[in-house]
Amino acid sequence: MYDNNQTMNPPADRSPVTVIGLGPMGRMLAAAFLQNGHPTTLWNRTKGKADELVSQGATVADTVADAVAASPLVIVCVLDYNAVYSILEYSAASLKGRTLVNLTSGSPDGARQMAAWAAKGGFNYLDGAIIVPAVGQPEASILYSGSENAYLTHQRTLMSLGGTSSYLSIDPGRAAAYDVALLDIFWTSMTGYIHALAIASAENITATDLVPYARKIIGMMPDIMVEFANQVDNSHYPGIESNLISTEAVMDNIIHASKARGIEVGVLIAAKNLVRQAIDLGYGKQDFSYLAELIRKPHDN
Amino acid sequence: MYDNNQTMNPPADRSPVTVIGLGPMGRMLAAAFLQNGHPTTLWNRTKGKADELVSQGATVADTVADAVAASPLVIVCVLDYNAVYSILEYSAASLKGRTLVNLTSGSPDGARQMAAWAAKGGFNYLDGAIIVPAVGQPEASILYSGSENAYLTHQRTLMSLGGTSSYLSIDPGRAAAYDVALLDIFWTSMTGYIHALAIASAENITATDLVPYARKIIGMMPDIMVEFANQVDNSHYPGIESNLISTEAVMDNIIHASKARGIEVGVLIAAKNLVRQAIDLGYGKQDFSYLAELIRKPHDN
Repeated sequence: MYDNNQTMNPPADRSPVTVIGLGPMGRMLAAAFLQNGHPTTLWNRTKGKADELVSQGATVADTVADAVAASPLVIVCVLDYNAVYSILEYSAASLKGRTLVNLTSGSPDGARQMAAWAAKGGFNYLDGAIIVPAVGQPEASILYSGSENAYLTHQRTLMSLGGTSSYLSIDPGRAAAYDVALLDIFWTSMTGYIHALAIASAENITATDLVPYARKIIGMMPDIMVEFANQVDNSHYPGIESNLISTEAVMDNIIHASKARGIEVGVLIAAKNLVRQAIDLGYGKQDFSYLAELIRKPHDN
Repeated sequence: MYDNNQTMNPPADRSPVTVIGLGPMGRMLAAAFLQNGHPTTLWNRTKGKADELVSQGATVADTVADAVAASPLVIVCVLDYNAVYSILEYSAASLKGRTLVNLTSGSPDGARQMAAWAAKGGFNYLDGAIIVPAVGQPEASILYSGSENAYLTHQRTLMSLGGTSSYLSIDPGRAAAYDVALLDIFWTSMTGYIHALAIASAENITATDLVPYARKIIGMMPDIMVEFANQVDNSHYPGIESNLISTEAVMDNIIHASKARGIEVGVLIAAKNLVRQAIDLGYGKQDFSYLAELIRKPHDN
């Protein structure tokens, strides 16, 4: 794994870059390359999105093939992998010998399929996942996997995106696997937070009143996450401070309090079902982290 | 609301306290009182749990009534509110004129019912929620609601539990409402985290490898929580940086990647169903935070 921190190793190269896709993220990527002095060529299905970047020095290509031909390094960041295929399928010949870095969010298998498509087309493929999307800023965190040679060749250019970048593995799906797991944490947590705001509101507590306490809860999580991670890696779930039985009691409480105010409880019921299944299998006195094993190898009830 | 910080206002009183229930949390509460010089009387269904506390100076009462009679302030912390009733129902007469502080986790309505039971029995009732359970330490955070008079009378004694305590409202259910909402955030987030560990493991990523990135994700949450809180309090969900349509695409990705590895997806499906319902109602271009409104007033599909 190669870790790079922009602040330690300021980029010196000014090699040209092409950015395909000018949604909010694509525009941030292009702006970061421009700011670091890279001749930047753009392509987007809708032309207007490029106006501000053109005023900062970017060039807009008329066709995808022209955009690809302008740079040895082509960055694509669009809605999903299907959009990547539909934009690039008629320009695969132009990609030959170049490197495609796909920062579009996708699944590990999707990334592996795209790497196979790239291999067939004779171009290098790096799959990337933007973990902390503060593009161009020191907090940004971007993971890459796929062609190691492509990463080493374009590492300094990619550092213009700021923050820390890490090359994980020649398995092109690895970056997407991290991405999917981390998005799972983020969106499931946000679902819990929004549900909590609904409970609070029904109990005459404003979201703003709840937030300082919600921050305290979030602040307790990293230590518990480390503890659970050790338990999962060692398949050892001692259940000393809490266990699945006590967690079920708490979840029942939340479900009861929600229903009493007419609040939907689908996510909580699904979570509680997992806990109940673990208890039924005899794991009630073990830690909540046991669920990682259960979820991976589901048992029929 | 009264906020008290132990470090600013060290407790001076040494009034006697009774602690009923000696599970892990009850023992921490009793130890904190003892450490701050309060004569502490204990009662627990199983006697052995008191041994260490007795060696630190605590007294064990033979009966619940004796335990209650020993102190003007009685703290109870057991499994659930039913356990509180079953322990105290035959000792309600001894409670007369005293204050019961119930630190057992429960629902807002459960707390309100218990306050009504206390009023009938002629004793004061404070419902408490231990938000950050670092009892006796500066990080502890305990919320109280119910009898304001009882809180003001026993405030300095309760400060022996450490950290910050806040009196929220004369509504005895208010502390439990915060508790339930915050536990919702915690356990739903942990469910997402454990699910992410299952995905990671299926993709040959150890939990320990994922943790540093999971911390980065957790670190991004407070700012987003503040933003969503403002949106919910103002019923205004502009959907500028992301929206329900983009969230659905991400959730589909996580579900797809999970299923590809045989990983259970019940919680994600339930979360996605909410997002889909919001999109079907025409809120697709609004922020995810709109779900707080949907969850509170569910629509039939």
